[in-house]
Amino acid sequence: MRLATLLGPDLKVLEGDPEALREVFEDFHPEDVAELLEDLGNEDVARILAALPSEVGADLLERIPSERQVEVLEILETEDAVDLLTEMDPDDRVDFFTELEADEQKALLDELARTDQEAATETQELLGWDPESAGGLMTPEYAALPPEMKAWEAIEALRELARQGEAETIYQVYVVGYGDKLLGVVSLRDLLLTDQGHELADIMTEKVVTVAPTDDQEEVARLCARYDLNVVPVVDEQHVLLGVVTIDDVVDVVIDEATEDAQLQGGVVPLEDGYFATGLLEFVWKRGAWLIVLFLGQLLTATVMERNQSVLQGTLELALFIPLIISSGGNAGSQSSTLIIRAMAVGDAQPKDWHRVLVRELAIGLALGLILGGMGFGRAYMAGETVDPLALGIAVGGSIVAIVTLSTIIGSLLPMLIQRLGLDPAVSSTPFIASVVDVLGLLVYFSVAVFALQTFF
Amino acid sequence: MRLATLLGPDLKVLEGDPEALREVFEDFHPEDVAELLEDLGNEDVARILAALPSEVGADLLERIPSERQVEVLEILETEDAVDLLTEMDPDDRVDFFTELEADEQKALLDELARTDQEAATETQELLGWDPESAGGLMTPEYAALPPEMKAWEAIEALRELARQGEAETIYQVYVVGYGDKLLGVVSLRDLLLTDQGHELADIMTEKVVTVAPTDDQEEVARLCARYDLNVVPVVDEQHVLLGVVTIDDVVDVVIDEATEDAQLQGGVVPLEDGYFATGLLEFVWKRGAWLIVLFLGQLLTATVMERNQSVLQGTLELALFIPLIISSGGNAGSQSSTLIIRAMAVGDAQPKDWHRVLVRELAIGLALGLILGGMGFGRAYMAGETVDPLALGIAVGGSIVAIVTLSTIIGSLLPMLIQRLGLDPAVSSTPFIASVVDVLGLLVYFSVAVFALQTFF
Repeated sequence: MRLATLLGPDLKVLEGDPEALREVFEDFHPEDVAELLEDLGNEDVARILAALPSEVGADLLERIPSERQVEVLEILETEDAVDLLTEMDPDDRVDFFTELEADEQKALLDELARTDQEAATETQELLGWDPESAGGLMTPEYAALPPEMKAWEAIEALRELARQGEAETIYQVYVVGYGDKLLGVVSLRDLLLTDQGHELADIMTEKVVTVAPTDDQEEVARLCARYDLNVVPVVDEQHVLLGVVTIDDVVDVVIDEATEDAQLQGGVVPLEDGYFATGLLEFVWKRGAWLIVLFLGQLLTATVMERNQSVLQGTLELALFIPLIISSGGNAGSQSSTLIIRAMAVGDAQPKDWHRVLVRELAIGLALGLILGGMGFGRAYMAGETVDPLALGIAVGGSIVAIVTLSTIIGSLLPMLIQRLGLDPAVSSTPFIASVVDVLGLLVYFSVAVFALQTFF
Repeated sequence: MRLATLLGPDLKVLEGDPEALREVFEDFHPEDVAELLEDLGNEDVARILAALPSEVGADLLERIPSERQVEVLEILETEDAVDLLTEMDPDDRVDFFTELEADEQKALLDELARTDQEAATETQELLGWDPESAGGLMTPEYAALPPEMKAWEAIEALRELARQGEAETIYQVYVVGYGDKLLGVVSLRDLLLTDQGHELADIMTEKVVTVAPTDDQEEVARLCARYDLNVVPVVDEQHVLLGVVTIDDVVDVVIDEATEDAQLQGGVVPLEDGYFATGLLEFVWKRGAWLIVLFLGQLLTATVMERNQSVLQGTLELALFIPLIISSGGNAGSQSSTLIIRAMAVGDAQPKDWHRVLVRELAIGLALGLILGGMGFGRAYMAGETVDPLALGIAVGGSIVAIVTLSTIIGSLLPMLIQRLGLDPAVSSTPFIASVVDVLGLLVYFSVAVFALQTFF
């Protein structure tokens, strides 16, 4: 931010002076420069990219949100745009193409093929995978060497790969043979340590953690976290190496998924961009959609109340505790759903554990219900005027025990059911659980109250 | 899990047969073996660790939760325990010592010093930092070389370091001089590429992203994500290199912080362990504490209702819409707080942006309020029997507009205020916001209703 205020206005002035511009870019991290560009218009950004050498420009372009990349490249001459695309990392290039319409994709791929056939083919292949899968995250630029190569030859080969910039990392060497099948992995560390005459086949580790290209990105992240991996190879069913996923992309996945889950759980359709980068209309729509659904569900509370109007008419004191009772259920249910959703996200729990969860939550819910129910009994006992205090206390206390226990169970099992149905469990958001529990809470309260009043009054 | 079921029972049998045990450990990733140990008692784990060579045992011990490490090491002979501690990675060893009481710490450090003075000193130094800071995450085992060293000499030095296992990563070389000051960094990739006669001083990058040892671990994670770093050097005020934080620890931080935030936002005191690893009593306490606080706050709703009993007595229809109105406020407020808490967690928003947030949320809240208010008006209009339908509609619709707007503002500003006070904003959990808004919602409703009924009736 400070850097932006410092340099933001100057950056536009520098457009006409490519040499000075280049110096600025040498002095700052491309990520910081990309942040500066946020404050400039698309036209200005396009001019700056055109003035830079294409590899520097591509490095910058990769750090701009994909939607904006499209807007900016549309302004540039096709030739300049293709130059930049050629220099981009394959996985970032694919993210860019994903933003395009099918016909635009095809036209631009044809242009790209004319300059760099390999990049075009690579991009086309990567475009076949779901952007949120291992295939969508992987890059085909890795170091793969044959098993019979000697250690010193491998080091020379890595030097050459690094010189050409053809591998995202040279610290892991993938040993492939028999038609690109992944046979094992050797770290550069091991290569340096070993007798230089040894063959890769002798020093490689054959136990390699791999993922399938169709694996969800969350699964990839879980594996990296579990086994402390910096790179994961992606292999197909025949164990043919297709690409590698690097840790920097995994870190982004972990952060993005946590943001998405948090927003879902807060009852918001996940945002594409950051808080301030999201337009007001988009906010109203992404929040309003859920609020309207929840409101429609909550209308049931009015109906339940209407049906039990006579009960309230007879004993108005019952109305006093309605907010207290339904919110106790909502709070307890929110806790359970939050705990279970997160436990499933980090791999601690799975839908098949539902019976273990049920037993635990039943015990916890009862304990919590009894504590809160006791407090509720005390408060209601003091409020009884037109009605027997004991009956009112029992109605309120008993309802709280029942609704807290019920909510705890619903809050924990509903996310598991939703996960089981193949949906994101985080959609059983806190407001959603609260709404379900509100309606249920009223039904429980009126039933318990009628029973208690008839029995003890 | 499958591996555990397969091997779990056999592992105990193998205790008496160190050779067979060693083979099992060679065939599986230590992380998977550590998972197997979860199902064994502490005594069994201790015997297995004692039977293994200490470097293999230490690798396993590092992957067991710290509290259990303490329980297991207490069973072992001091000599065996110290051997394992010596072989542990320094950052993991510190995590272990953090679990001990002060006097146990001192006693064990003295024992450790007798076997490995360097490890003891190192541990004592690292123990001085907050476990959730960069200092608490860093390891002192990195590759540091002097600036006048030539590229080929540096590669030889890295070979030696790797052979001794004295560096967590040899892929980044830190160039230090003038009393351990960090001068720059050279990647092993660059070392391999450059003319082997060049000095490190000539090829190093001087623009290095660093952190201070007191920086919060979340800040370290943000930097790694932003600049795609795999290692971050930790330097003191004199720019002296103290250690490095590696990406595997950063990934764990990102995941743990997201879990902690999710739990706080769901109204649960964050758990130390996973869902199933947490005891029932701990759950009741960690959930009950918040539920009781919320319940006490919610008791205010009963008081507000009591004070307005005469209004309800006059127009019972008003009671029907109480759950609907307070939950609309709760839902809208939860959305805002979730969005802002996450935006602050990922660095998109800061407390000083509060006025920008206020303007946005005011606009969004009003828009959402008008949509829901309109729906509420329609529903209430249909319910008016003893009361003028128009007056009831205005009371309900107007209250919803007011409470949704208010909740949106409170939900967004409260987390910023809490952050500003130096607390974790995630404590302004969804249930907390909902409770505040419930009380407020009732106050607004009764005021608007009395006004509407008096004016239109």
